[in-house]
Amino acid sequence: MTARYPDLDQVIQKLTHLLGERCSTAAAVREQHGKDESWHFPEAPDVVCFARSTEEVSEIVKICAAHKVPIIPFGAGTSLEGHVTAVQGGVSLDLNEMNEILRVSPEDLDCTVQPGVRRKQLNEFLRDTGLFFPIDPGADASIGGMASTRASGTNAVRYGTMRENILSMKVVLPNGKIISTGHRSKKSAAGYDLTKLYIGSEGTLGIITEITLKLYGIPEAISAATVSFPDIESAVQSVILTIQSGIPIARIELLDDVQVDAINKYSNLDLAVQPTLFLEFHGSDAYVKEQAEQVNDICSKFGAEGFQWTTKLEDRTKLWQARHDAAYAAIALRNGAQIWATDVCVPISRLADCIMETKQDLDESFLIAPLVGHVGDGNFHLSFVIKKENPEELKEAERLNGRLIERALAMDGTCTGEHGVGIGKKKYMYREHGDAVEVMAALKAALDPDNIMNPGKILPDMAAE
Amino acid sequence: MTARYPDLDQVIQKLTHLLGERCSTAAAVREQHGKDESWHFPEAPDVVCFARSTEEVSEIVKICAAHKVPIIPFGAGTSLEGHVTAVQGGVSLDLNEMNEILRVSPEDLDCTVQPGVRRKQLNEFLRDTGLFFPIDPGADASIGGMASTRASGTNAVRYGTMRENILSMKVVLPNGKIISTGHRSKKSAAGYDLTKLYIGSEGTLGIITEITLKLYGIPEAISAATVSFPDIESAVQSVILTIQSGIPIARIELLDDVQVDAINKYSNLDLAVQPTLFLEFHGSDAYVKEQAEQVNDICSKFGAEGFQWTTKLEDRTKLWQARHDAAYAAIALRNGAQIWATDVCVPISRLADCIMETKQDLDESFLIAPLVGHVGDGNFHLSFVIKKENPEELKEAERLNGRLIERALAMDGTCTGEHGVGIGKKKYMYREHGDAVEVMAALKAALDPDNIMNPGKILPDMAAE
Repeated sequence: MTARYPDLDQVIQKLTHLLGERCSTAAAVREQHGKDESWHFPEAPDVVCFARSTEEVSEIVKICAAHKVPIIPFGAGTSLEGHVTAVQGGVSLDLNEMNEILRVSPEDLDCTVQPGVRRKQLNEFLRDTGLFFPIDPGADASIGGMASTRASGTNAVRYGTMRENILSMKVVLPNGKIISTGHRSKKSAAGYDLTKLYIGSEGTLGIITEITLKLYGIPEAISAATVSFPDIESAVQSVILTIQSGIPIARIELLDDVQVDAINKYSNLDLAVQPTLFLEFHGSDAYVKEQAEQVNDICSKFGAEGFQWTTKLEDRTKLWQARHDAAYAAIALRNGAQIWATDVCVPISRLADCIMETKQDLDESFLIAPLVGHVGDGNFHLSFVIKKENPEELKEAERLNGRLIERALAMDGTCTGEHGVGIGKKKYMYREHGDAVEVMAALKAALDPDNIMNPGKILPDMAAE
Repeated sequence: MTARYPDLDQVIQKLTHLLGERCSTAAAVREQHGKDESWHFPEAPDVVCFARSTEEVSEIVKICAAHKVPIIPFGAGTSLEGHVTAVQGGVSLDLNEMNEILRVSPEDLDCTVQPGVRRKQLNEFLRDTGLFFPIDPGADASIGGMASTRASGTNAVRYGTMRENILSMKVVLPNGKIISTGHRSKKSAAGYDLTKLYIGSEGTLGIITEITLKLYGIPEAISAATVSFPDIESAVQSVILTIQSGIPIARIELLDDVQVDAINKYSNLDLAVQPTLFLEFHGSDAYVKEQAEQVNDICSKFGAEGFQWTTKLEDRTKLWQARHDAAYAAIALRNGAQIWATDVCVPISRLADCIMETKQDLDESFLIAPLVGHVGDGNFHLSFVIKKENPEELKEAERLNGRLIERALAMDGTCTGEHGVGIGKKKYMYREHGDAVEVMAALKAALDPDNIMNPGKILPDMAAE
């Protein structure tokens, strides 16, 4: 590895001088930092640094920049497309020690956090204020990682994704300079939207070291519901009509029969093994009831049965924990298996077609792949349950994934609604964006001319060269 | 002017060949295209082109690019910071003949329009579908112009700004290539957010030729209300508490006593000449009533009187027309006057301080400046009523504007919440963004290396060179 970066020893020396024991070349530490929760084959960085402040990040970046050594930011390690894999070696920059909640303003419904803060940590901290932060990818991800991948989750249908919920960020540029991408006002028309440019940039344009987030009042009333359908199409049609009716549903999640079976086993539930919606409503007592009744009416029209709703906290918690554990439930379907998680997003009018065609593909395949989705946004996931040491299985997952993506793109959708590109979806970028990839490559080259920020991610190889 | 661009005659020849009579050098046409609704001194372009298609825009851009002649996109001409002024001459690209609504999808709650479509035209077209597009700057602006300036308006507190309501755009790049910035799915994590980069870029990175917008169902019930306050602080405190309470108010607009007096005269109303809120509620019949009662309670606590509400369409229309005519009402306060419109936006916790200090400044000045604002977002406007041929008045407006902006920035706000930068606020960009201006300049240089797209806008002169 060292051959790739002739100055690497010098870089490690400087980093050790700066950080002491917080600069590590231990094999175990390096290996841990080269892998995420994806199926992708890990590649370890040459060295791992643990930063404690924006200024330290800036110093680390300056050292790496001077010697053109790559830097890969590392948070919770829960990404799903190999975002943290050190495909060109270099320095993994672990931000977990930057995990302070710097300020909360109940008056402004916002807060500022360091990138290593986890989403659950934030909500525990906020509980006494009556506020919450709604974005909830399945894993207990770091806020920095969630910003970097433009994450979303089950609440996005009501509250938006990270894209809609970050007011501004502090970023260390590839030259070590520290900037703010914006301010705390809710709106601004003052120049290019750097906040949005950095959201979803996956560490390729700089290192996010502070994030100012929007918060929301915990609703006066919350109720959850489950409802089963005779087939997947009627479930999806119910979702479409709910969204079109403008009901401000907080969560509307589809699980296919395979996924319901998996979570019944994993989370000890006894749901009917049928296509099922998990729902949540936020509002006043009266308004929550009104919404639930409206949705129940819609679902009944499409032949749903057993609409069960609850306002009890423990029932709701159990339901959503099971939903968040869907991927782990999928893994547990098969001994020694892993999952290849993928996601696409399409306009909601095409969602039924997209899911039906995908189910057809799966029916004809030897692989199992539970389907679950944030269907209110037209976004759904497959979890291919594979043993990745088996090349046949990898090849089949690759084939099904490719067909899924082609299908979504043909429907004016996207190859990923929330997981991001990483190394896994680079090859679909030209297919999705055409010449716009050149614009992305020009932005990357302008801000990171030496290509040291998480190289080998997002941009397809031709564009990046 | 021609001296600036030695090839200009050749460019005009090529454009005439392409467009025939839709390429004009007539003085009246050129003059009309060099000015907007701002106080800024107009500068005419050398030539005006009227495009009818994306392909034509591409051809025009290629001709200009080959000879390094500037292009300034032109929509409704209602911008407020000199955005269309041809400060370096060149070609004004009028997009008003591209005014088709290309598709509406009620299923997906979205539509695609050409940039010359006006906001009122779109809503008239949509009426029979039961859908509407909420973004409403005061003027009947073009959708392309609204995208370019990241416009918002009275509904933004509920529905967001242009930033939140554009799914994707077609853009002609400075080299003439045509790209899509995204697709119609509600979410995407597939690469850099080019859609958001182009929103608010004021024509400096390319020409927007199609816009895909989010639409909303017309609410089942709409009610409007007005309420007067003994002083401006109690009005602002009522707004802050309303927002903090999470009431999903659709509109909450503050008018100070000076503005109320102006619209009473201009729009023939008889409101008490006191700080006043204009409100609107969207939802079901019951929910609209519930919201109005909650807000009435809040306002009463702060000493408000005369909370009047109505669900009658004609009363609502009259009220909001008067609000949208606020700037024209301000002009009418003084014979032969113009207004210098400015806006800032601050975190809502600082809004009362910001407005009180600003009113103090105005009390001590010889200029009149009605204050009106989208206060639910922390955004407010001043309209300095000036005669711009009087240098003393210009100087005083400049001084007050500078103090307003310094105040907003010191409160972690922005120098413009919705009007944009244009030529008017360039000089505040370093003060607001610091080194981040260099990032913006790098983006501009990467995408438009010859600086032909609306040069002299957004970026302060040092950064742009």
